[in-house]
Amino acid sequence: MVGGIMNGATDLCDKVETLPKELDLKGTMNCSDKLAQLPNEFDPMEIAPPFTLEGNGVAEDLTSRNRDIVLGRNVHTISYAIKEPEADDDVTGEREAYMASVLSRYRTSLIERTKHHLGYPYNLDFDYGALSQLQHFSINNLGDPFIESNYGVHSRQFEVGVLDWFARLWELEKNEYWGYITNCGTEGNLHGILVGREVFPDGILYASKESHYSVFKAGRMYRMECVKVGTLVSGEIDCADFERKLLMNSEKPAIVNVNIGTTVKGAVDDLDMVIETLNKSGFKGRFYIHCDGALFGLMMPFVKRAPKVTFKKHIDSVSVSGHKFVGCPMPCGVQITRLKHINVLSSNIEYLASRDATIMGSRNGHAPIFLWYTLNRKGYRGFQKEVQKCLRNAHYLKDRLLTAGISAMLNELSSTVVLERPKDEEFVRRWQLACEGNIAHVVVMPNVTIDKLDRFLEELMERRLRWYGNGEARAPCVAVDVGPENCRCSDHKN
Amino acid sequence: MVGGIMNGATDLCDKVETLPKELDLKGTMNCSDKLAQLPNEFDPMEIAPPFTLEGNGVAEDLTSRNRDIVLGRNVHTISYAIKEPEADDDVTGEREAYMASVLSRYRTSLIERTKHHLGYPYNLDFDYGALSQLQHFSINNLGDPFIESNYGVHSRQFEVGVLDWFARLWELEKNEYWGYITNCGTEGNLHGILVGREVFPDGILYASKESHYSVFKAGRMYRMECVKVGTLVSGEIDCADFERKLLMNSEKPAIVNVNIGTTVKGAVDDLDMVIETLNKSGFKGRFYIHCDGALFGLMMPFVKRAPKVTFKKHIDSVSVSGHKFVGCPMPCGVQITRLKHINVLSSNIEYLASRDATIMGSRNGHAPIFLWYTLNRKGYRGFQKEVQKCLRNAHYLKDRLLTAGISAMLNELSSTVVLERPKDEEFVRRWQLACEGNIAHVVVMPNVTIDKLDRFLEELMERRLRWYGNGEARAPCVAVDVGPENCRCSDHKN
Repeated sequence: MVGGIMNGATDLCDKVETLPKELDLKGTMNCSDKLAQLPNEFDPMEIAPPFTLEGNGVAEDLTSRNRDIVLGRNVHTISYAIKEPEADDDVTGEREAYMASVLSRYRTSLIERTKHHLGYPYNLDFDYGALSQLQHFSINNLGDPFIESNYGVHSRQFEVGVLDWFARLWELEKNEYWGYITNCGTEGNLHGILVGREVFPDGILYASKESHYSVFKAGRMYRMECVKVGTLVSGEIDCADFERKLLMNSEKPAIVNVNIGTTVKGAVDDLDMVIETLNKSGFKGRFYIHCDGALFGLMMPFVKRAPKVTFKKHIDSVSVSGHKFVGCPMPCGVQITRLKHINVLSSNIEYLASRDATIMGSRNGHAPIFLWYTLNRKGYRGFQKEVQKCLRNAHYLKDRLLTAGISAMLNELSSTVVLERPKDEEFVRRWQLACEGNIAHVVVMPNVTIDKLDRFLEELMERRLRWYGNGEARAPCVAVDVGPENCRCSDHKN
Repeated sequence: MVGGIMNGATDLCDKVETLPKELDLKGTMNCSDKLAQLPNEFDPMEIAPPFTLEGNGVAEDLTSRNRDIVLGRNVHTISYAIKEPEADDDVTGEREAYMASVLSRYRTSLIERTKHHLGYPYNLDFDYGALSQLQHFSINNLGDPFIESNYGVHSRQFEVGVLDWFARLWELEKNEYWGYITNCGTEGNLHGILVGREVFPDGILYASKESHYSVFKAGRMYRMECVKVGTLVSGEIDCADFERKLLMNSEKPAIVNVNIGTTVKGAVDDLDMVIETLNKSGFKGRFYIHCDGALFGLMMPFVKRAPKVTFKKHIDSVSVSGHKFVGCPMPCGVQITRLKHINVLSSNIEYLASRDATIMGSRNGHAPIFLWYTLNRKGYRGFQKEVQKCLRNAHYLKDRLLTAGISAMLNELSSTVVLERPKDEEFVRRWQLACEGNIAHVVVMPNVTIDKLDRFLEELMERRLRWYGNGEARAPCVAVDVGPENCRCSDHKN
């Protein structure tokens, strides 16, 4: 119990002596006794990071661009190191100038990266200028949104407004729902499945194999038995396979993840058929349904012919991402569940003056304000218009791809266009496409204009000529992924 | 599979007919056939929220200020409802005016609430003006910080810089650590304990009873056996009790949560003694230690005589909050663990072009930039100064409380001053004190000045005269919480 910072310095000196030779510890090490006096003579270089930024704001590229996925490695591809300020930094202003330079380069790269972005379902079209006045407050919604906490710098009043809007959208009365604004879609799935497990402790988790990986992560975290169900070519859950698997496990209750838009193909599981399958397999009263509506949970209510996601059906929780269709500068999500389920999860926490049924204790209080602002500005009518525009543009893209002889598929209720995986990884990275096996996808969000799609198409067609024009290589067959009718490989075209 | 939004409208009309009478559905319901046409004649009022904001930007107070913690209730204390825009809102500008008015009132309340804040360990003193240029980008660090993702609008380069800084602080080499920037301290604990469980699947979770509630939440989520260990009056873990409990469960490995600053008393568990206890109880090679350094993980390296948190000792993971001592407008945290442990948690996720050992998939990309900015500006030297100031001010507060005859305690390594719980809840709320049983606490952060403490003290002393002055009521005895030597109740004072 003696030493503190002096110990720190000494230990580091010891460490330098015993470190392997190849470690390059930059900065002058000074282990003289004077370090024992605090505070003026503390030499921060003693614990300065071992590598520093070379030049002026140029990120250090420590490895070649290695895209292999390797377990057990820790790739420092690019990083902006933190450098201990010099004692005279305040005078020279060098520190501020250095940081301003890093930030300005970073901003330029963000503009470029935002411009070439098609693969992830993030609406990058928003203007939150009116909210910048709030950026410098430490807004934190601790614990349950419906129970006042003693911490006053929160935004519960916005959060509850947003939750009410969503509960209404999914038709659950105000006194029958509970929910909160999460950090992302994953947290929504973690929460929904946890509630399911608490309601049915010996329940088995069922999810189609095209579900988001967070669903299977939840199963592992929570030590649940987990059964993967097959899918149709569209990406929807295969209810025949679901039934078979239910019957094999009929003694235990079912906790079911239903995809309202799968990650890769944007396929919407048929909720009505899932419920019917459960009922006819003898699971009545013994199942819990979580709807993972990450993207389409908000689009579907505005799509003609879409099966309705509503709590009037036998579902138990719904989650949706806030940074996707709504558009929000940081990841967030909305989680709505039946209030009666929440008691099983709650515990009294005097520290927060709050029961806490959330997964995270501290929660970002800015996100609810962003959501509140957009929902208020656009309203249902505004979202409806945007959904229609996205669907129109997605159809445009799919039609043009097929016309150009490029394999493509678009599910009826979706704005996710699946296409053959471009041959060149550099092209994939440039357009930030998400890929799986032989397919890639473009998610048409409100910020994806016809003009942007045209540029993408032109570039893709021009590249394909290079890749496949001389006949040496052939475009991949993706019939198994998108169905033979949508495949344009040499075996399937026409 | 037919209907979509028309179905929505129709269902809502059906719903109105079958809803209980007491539900007040505002807005004109119009269920005529014309709703079947899209998009122009869709009437958004059909799905407008059932309650709306009265007046101009004044929040609706739906219940009286009920602070009871009641399970199974859903208290809509105050909320800013979201109202569907009128068709002519763009013309009249009323919508924008209404929202501007709500935001401006909210901002005023944030200023006031930020001014009177003492109970939570959040440093509210920061200036991130230089970063406002980045606010309108949708920055998302999906998956593992060390593996490039195809999504280009990220801030990994800042995140890795921050992680390197912390790994260095806690003395773990760059090629031996793994970590990420979390959403909050809770996520750090959830991650550390999950890794512990994956390393020792049948391990028992040990934590002192004064650990943060997220530790016990993790135990329940992960279906782990959990043993609560007693504490000393200071709040530190009682190693004698720990040893007894280890010996009762000697057949199973131990996963231990060590508090580097407990939530309520700011007590620092004696890490060296915990390790010694494990070794002498026969647990050598069969234990995992997670250090919950929510607040003090960053302060301790700068405190004289503090036991050192370092990976040179047998510890396995450390977490710290980013929005506490560092100060950050949204909750966040840093999690550092040994790289070798991470493989047990990882799974290959082609969708992200990334293995993902994080708990959350999508992560706020702004938080790393805030942290990077502050660490770069202040450096180790800056933090050292601030820590010293906080400790000085905390001593000042404790001394003045005791001198005034008010029970108070301050742990040696802490800036958390424990005091008798003020009698009046309104006073507690005004100063946003966190309370537990008969005690409350003030956490002296860099933004808590002597001047602010003086105002608090004056107000408290004046109130106490009213509460206890006429002898009808007596200040609570808190000897059991803070030790008789720190208690100033009528039984214990001198």
